[in-house]
Amino acid sequence: QVSIIMGSDSDWRVMEAAKAVLDELGVASEVDVVSAHRTPQKMVDFARGAADRGVRVIIAGAGGAAHLPGMVASMTRLPVIGVPVPLEKLDGLDSLLSIVQMPAGIPVATVSIGGARNAGILAARMLGAFDAELGTRLDAFAAELERQVDGKAQALRERVATGERAETGA
Amino acid sequence: QVSIIMGSDSDWRVMEAAKAVLDELGVASEVDVVSAHRTPQKMVDFARGAADRGVRVIIAGAGGAAHLPGMVASMTRLPVIGVPVPLEKLDGLDSLLSIVQMPAGIPVATVSIGGARNAGILAARMLGAFDAELGTRLDAFAAELERQVDGKAQALRERVATGERAETGA
Amino acid sequence: QVSIIMGSDSDWRVMEAAKAVLDELGVASEVDVVSAHRTPQKMVDFARGAADRGVRVIIAGAGGAAHLPGMVASMTRLPVIGVPVPLEKLDGLDSLLSIVQMPAGIPVATVSIGGARNAGILAARMLGAFDAELGTRLDAFAAELERQVDGKAQALRERVATGERAETGA
Amino acid sequence: QVSIIMGSDSDWRVMEAAKAVLDELGVASEVDVVSAHRTPQKMVDFARGAADRGVRVIIAGAGGAAHLPGMVASMTRLPVIGVPVPLEKLDGLDSLLSIVQMPAGIPVATVSIGGARNAGILAARMLGAFDAELGTRLDAFAAELERQVDGKAQALRERVATGERAETGA
Amino acid sequence: QVSIIMGSDSDWRVMEAAKAVLDELGVASEVDVVSAHRTPQKMVDFARGAADRGVRVIIAGAGGAAHLPGMVASMTRLPVIGVPVPLEKLDGLDSLLSIVQMPAGIPVATVSIGGARNAGILAARMLGAFDAELGTRLDAFAAELERQVDGKAQALRERVATGERAETGA
Amino acid sequence: QVSIIMGSDSDWRVMEAAKAVLDELGVASEVDVVSAHRTPQKMVDFARGAADRGVRVIIAGAGGAAHLPGMVASMTRLPVIGVPVPLEKLDGLDSLLSIVQMPAGIPVATVSIGGARNAGILAARMLGAFDAELGTRLDAFAAELERQVDGKAQALRERVATGERAETGA
Amino acid sequence: QVSIIMGSDSDWRVMEAAKAVLDELGVASEVDVVSAHRTPQKMVDFARGAADRGVRVIIAGAGGAAHLPGMVASMTRLPVIGVPVPLEKLDGLDSLLSIVQMPAGIPVATVSIGGARNAGILAARMLGAFDAELGTRLDAFAAELERQVDGKAQALRERVATGERAETGA
Amino acid sequence: QVSIIMGSDSDWRVMEAAKAVLDELGVASEVDVVSAHRTPQKMVDFARGAADRGVRVIIAGAGGAAHLPGMVASMTRLPVIGVPVPLEKLDGLDSLLSIVQMPAGIPVATVSIGGARNAGILAARMLGAFDAELGTRLDAFAAELERQVDGKAQALRERVATGERAETGA
Repeated sequence: QVSIIMGSDSDWRVMEAAKAVLDELGVASEVDVVSAHRTPQKMVDFARGAADRGVRVIIAGAGGAAHLPGMVASMTRLPVIGVPVPLEKLDGLDSLLSIVQMPAGIPVATVSIGGARNAGILAARMLGAFDAELGTRLDAFAAELERQVDGKAQALRERVATGERAETGA
Repeated sequence: QVSIIMGSDSDWRVMEAAKAVLDELGVASEVDVVSAHRTPQKMVDFARGAADRGVRVIIAGAGGAAHLPGMVASMTRLPVIGVPVPLEKLDGLDSLLSIVQMPAGIPVATVSIGGARNAGILAARMLGAFDAELGTRLDAFAAELERQVDGKAQALRERVATGERAETGA
Repeated sequence: QVSIIMGSDSDWRVMEAAKAVLDELGVASEVDVVSAHRTPQKMVDFARGAADRGVRVIIAGAGGAAHLPGMVASMTRLPVIGVPVPLEKLDGLDSLLSIVQMPAGIPVATVSIGGARNAGILAARMLGAFDAELGTRLDAFAAELERQVDGKAQALRERVATGERAETGA
Repeated sequence: QVSIIMGSDSDWRVMEAAKAVLDELGVASEVDVVSAHRTPQKMVDFARGAADRGVRVIIAGAGGAAHLPGMVASMTRLPVIGVPVPLEKLDGLDSLLSIVQMPAGIPVATVSIGGARNAGILAARMLGAFDAELGTRLDAFAAELERQVDGKAQALRERVATGERAETGA
Repeated sequence: QVSIIMGSDSDWRVMEAAKAVLDELGVASEVDVVSAHRTPQKMVDFARGAADRGVRVIIAGAGGAAHLPGMVASMTRLPVIGVPVPLEKLDGLDSLLSIVQMPAGIPVATVSIGGARNAGILAARMLGAFDAELGTRLDAFAAELERQVDGKAQALRERVATGERAETGA
Repeated sequence: QVSIIMGSDSDWRVMEAAKAVLDELGVASEVDVVSAHRTPQKMVDFARGAADRGVRVIIAGAGGAAHLPGMVASMTRLPVIGVPVPLEKLDGLDSLLSIVQMPAGIPVATVSIGGARNAGILAARMLGAFDAELGTRLDAFAAELERQVDGKAQALRERVATGERAETGA
Repeated sequence: QVSIIMGSDSDWRVMEAAKAVLDELGVASEVDVVSAHRTPQKMVDFARGAADRGVRVIIAGAGGAAHLPGMVASMTRLPVIGVPVPLEKLDGLDSLLSIVQMPAGIPVATVSIGGARNAGILAARMLGAFDAELGTRLDAFAAELERQVDGKAQALRERVATGERAETGA
Repeated sequence: QVSIIMGSDSDWRVMEAAKAVLDELGVASEVDVVSAHRTPQKMVDFARGAADRGVRVIIAGAGGAAHLPGMVASMTRLPVIGVPVPLEKLDGLDSLLSIVQMPAGIPVATVSIGGARNAGILAARMLGAFDAELGTRLDAFAAELERQVDGKAQALRERVATGERAETGA
């Protein structure tokens, strides 16, 4: 249901978080390397065939002059989620602007710099709007996030309190 | 199916393009002003109730320290599309970063600065992945875009050719 | 009197400097993790209850699309000090803009990127305007800062002079 | 109780909003032009004497290499609120960074670029933490903000609904 | 010999300077609108066929998430010159980064924001390296530039001198 | 045919990639250090003499206030390719703007920050437009790039599939 | 004693403020247009001959990829003051970085974007360090600045006081 | 003749290059730590007394909201050279803007981020305009720079040539 592509296999270090969270949420996904610049024909074929192959959401990660998400979006009617992959210089600002500043007519749903995990969750939310069971899993997922933060908050409060007692005791 | 909200009624000059394109594409939508900072309770109620009211996608526009899209996304499991509204200073860069740089767990599908039309199209793409008829309308929409560009290209080529003949004739 | 909150327990590495300086200045403070995005209800409850619990100043640290300080400010009448926590990318510029660029009506007193120590001092200054004893401690604090710089200046001048003699002697 | 200063009388176009909202909230204030660079002695005298004159909060606006808020903060123990005034170029980004990026020890409570109204509200919040009556006025102020947004939301919803009927009727 | 394309006919206001300077330099050129996002197939056909049609240099202008120059460069072996077209927001910085930050393997020869005239001159320089006559015209072009600046320098010096005499005479 | 110059021998760590790819593509090149600021006369002599020595393309790398590419371009009619060399601070943004933002009349063909490999390929594309054999090598080069990406894509798909089986098997 | 040059006669609108303040301060100056890119030989001759002609300080203004100040500084031992002239896009940030980020060995004394008046004053300060009479005029100049600010401060305080009485009277 | 001050002794790691080059050039200098924010009175005394103590040029380094150079410039008629010291975040961009963007009337001669060596050379150039012997040393200094670059260029050309022979020999 979700297809995860990236411009280079070196983007996998960032993009694997999308696959991981989709696995957590029980959403089927596939992974491939499709380069807008180095394999343009493969990109065209991928984008044109995705809807017919049953894909419902595409996640595309790319860095620098990141053209992959926008180009794929121009050749499919599916929603495309773009992940700006940060490269060695400019902290991903070039990737972000190259992905998000699409012209009217062809949107890309852009997430944060390096935000592949959020790309996976966003894809699940899109599907969950039409899949009650997945919607329930997303609710549980949010509740779990909340529970984790509460746990960490508790731990920090204790650490601070202990630190204070320790200092007082000293 | 789509709920369009914005932080201030002055954002309507930007956000009405989302409503307009959804109308063009035959997708039902509602409009409201919900301010994260000035009507926080209304925002909480809106976000928590949206899925149960049958909304499937939320479009939220905001400017400056633009917290509305992210805050709504934190209180619903629906996909939330964020539109960075440019204010008088900084050309919307603050709005963009405030919307797109969400922490892991809570994604916002960010479109370009002022890109409300694309937000509407993106919402339609999300729905179209589960609605064959809307999918067909989206294909027609893309074909129409292509036809328009071809028409403009033809017009420009003629203008350039005429300009050249005119110069030659002079 | 001062409540220090942060969006994630990983922000503690930055935020503990606020607690430390308040301890130095003899100002009572409490610490908690409150996430705008992951524990929105806890945030609402915290912000609404703070004034009644006797808190007089809130210090809130957050990174990236940093919504916590502004959201808390929208649900309390207390002064809220925002600390932009720098994340791995963008050097905290996204955090800064997300915190400082608040719309008219809801201010956040923003300090420098990573400036938790200054947040603590700022809170003390606010309280010190109504607490003569704390005011005196703040004057002593400034005098101590001045004394330290004078000491370092003396040390540097000596180091430079010695370096010159050494070179001359060689 | 609040002293509003600015580096140039041309900053008054921005800074008058601070005076206006303090008047609305019934907080006494004074206004002066004090230039860090052109009247340095006046600045020193102003900063050193403010606390003894009964001032409890200082609001300082400046643009470009905006040194006034930080320099005043270095010579008083009162809380200083800095307003980055945007000049003709750079949209106030230079003003913002010159004000907010203070070194450890000397904080400036920075508000948004051109955010003089918020500076006034922030000053009132600081005072309101020790003044129950002003606290009540601040609560009323926030309620009025909320009421205004609700009114505008209502107006927009009607405008949109009417627009749709109008189109349908056409 | 030179093909000038742009993503939208609204880019012509910027791009016509490329055509104009090529006309001045006696270099044949053609003009078309080719949108990476709205007419992707036309772009593929254009890029793949350019070298065989006898084109030796391609000039491509685009704005925002400007993918046209890079995508064309990925499907031809000809040199591609990219012109960042500034849009309403961000002063063309997004266009510049989207064009210049290409990954290793696929270069785009990027000129300044809005620098279509320079794109034309650059194309002529590429051709002039193999065309002695054009090389001579380029030398004359540079000499003419120098002559113009000398004339303007002379005029300014006179204006300043006169201004001084006028003041003295007054 | 191609002359590669740089402002400092410390730029060689970046610039050697230009030489390397030209070697791969069988294009003759020479290398030198020519500093706009420290050896201005050498720069003048180099730029004025390049065309007559048979050079057809110049590649110039420089960092910071990077004046070398533009200054050389002002004293030759040959195409000059500029490589923004990133220095310790600002990630090469100063280098990029100093090279790309040339005034009308004197273009520099700018590649990505640190993009010396692309500078070499761009030079080869310029020459290949007039050299059928080199053109063929460039086509083979692109085909090889595509083949490499396909190989990496295959490897990644296998790694992901194996990972899944492994997890399933566990 | 001071030579004011600029890259284009269109920079005069900015640069004339340098001449004006030098006239005010009684410092002799000359004006010329010298383009690093369009009249490189003139620039070389100017820079090499300046010291021998009795010039003691050079003020050079330029915009975009602003190479003039740095190139002149590389061919003279005189202090060179650089004025970043803002062009239509980027608010002069490119001009600033191109001028200020000079490599070790060749400094340019950079003033603010569009800061030609300050360039003139800075030149006068350099000369005034060796010219007691000019030093006295500079002291008077600073005193006059202070007096003007005091006058404006007085006027603003009166305006504010009157406004309050007016409102009270209404 | 030259006074080198800095806002913190931790700036010495950057600023010692100014002292070093002045020593190389035989220009007498003194060093001190003077903090605009932590020792404001010392700064006032320093700035007001500098000219009378025989100082002819002041070099001031500071980071972040770097107010030292501008504040000193406001209280002396001597030329002040500002060195933006880069801190942990923002790569010194905040330091640069805080120093260079001074208002009309009070210039600071700004050098590159971290450019203390250039600050020293700039000071020497200012003095050298009135000191023939120092002028000669500056000419020798430039010639030495040129000689060094030529040596490095020679070494690089040999390294490249050898590399080629080695490859050929293999």
